[in-house]
Amino acid sequence: MLILGLDPGLGTTGWGLVHAEGNRLAHRGNGRLKTDTSQPLPRRLAHLDAMLAALLADHAPNAGACEEIFVNANPQTTLKLAQARGVALCALARGGLIVGEYAPRLVKQAVVGTGAAEKAQVHAMVARLLPGTKIDGADAADALAVAITHAHHLATARRLG
Amino acid sequence: MLILGLDPGLGTTGWGLVHAEGNRLAHRGNGRLKTDTSQPLPRRLAHLDAMLAALLADHAPNAGACEEIFVNANPQTTLKLAQARGVALCALARGGLIVGEYAPRLVKQAVVGTGAAEKAQVHAMVARLLPGTKIDGADAADALAVAITHAHHLATARRLG
Repeated sequence: MLILGLDPGLGTTGWGLVHAEGNRLAHRGNGRLKTDTSQPLPRRLAHLDAMLAALLADHAPNAGACEEIFVNANPQTTLKLAQARGVALCALARGGLIVGEYAPRLVKQAVVGTGAAEKAQVHAMVARLLPGTKIDGADAADALAVAITHAHHLATARRLG
Repeated sequence: MLILGLDPGLGTTGWGLVHAEGNRLAHRGNGRLKTDTSQPLPRRLAHLDAMLAALLADHAPNAGACEEIFVNANPQTTLKLAQARGVALCALARGGLIVGEYAPRLVKQAVVGTGAAEKAQVHAMVARLLPGTKIDGADAADALAVAITHAHHLATARRLG
């Protein structure tokens, strides 16, 4: 099972591909999708959509995973993030994928073992779980972390019946 | 110039088509796009996206217009709205349309004459500006109002140079 994890954002969307077979995880790619800040919002969203469609066409994942939004103190920041996330979820569903959605606290719990983990701890733990992986920054690390969380969730669901 | 106005929402997205020639406005259609509340969020967004793509293919508008988000007191409501709006803006831009974005206050100002107008006043004024139009509820009235606002804006911009 190939899982595409996304950490959506209007400026930068992190992505991470993890192959899961039972409890065994293998890295299949990660990176960042960037939109041009000089373009108007609708064009940036359409660009993000096109990059996600190309990613799905290139890698043909079997499942998607995405963090839920942690409501930011700044409403304008949260709005931008939510609009980008809407496009990301839509692109995954249009590609025929079922999407797992996880609260940031749950992702940290699954990857580091505590919901209060710092970003650097998540990054370090992702690197340890996927040895030899070159991680393209914090957004890609978060995307890999949500893909790993989804893999754990699916494995647990299978064990439970 | 055929303008598609949208009043996006996760459950119901209002749409309204207005043909503008100088200061003359003519109604070309309005309605509501609904998603199934029993479906998960990504599927609902993909359904909205597909309905918008069909609307663009059917009517081939030349421009799009969309209200900006008035940040709701309830953050979860605002998040749902923002994710649907992201999909709507993306669909318009993917269809090659330039999208005008207007604050709700500005739409009321343009249509009713005061930014503090009630929803019922907007509805009544849209019905007067587009005589004989059967308006499919408040969301479609808002969508027609934002299309009318965009028409006024374009006419003014043309007059000024």
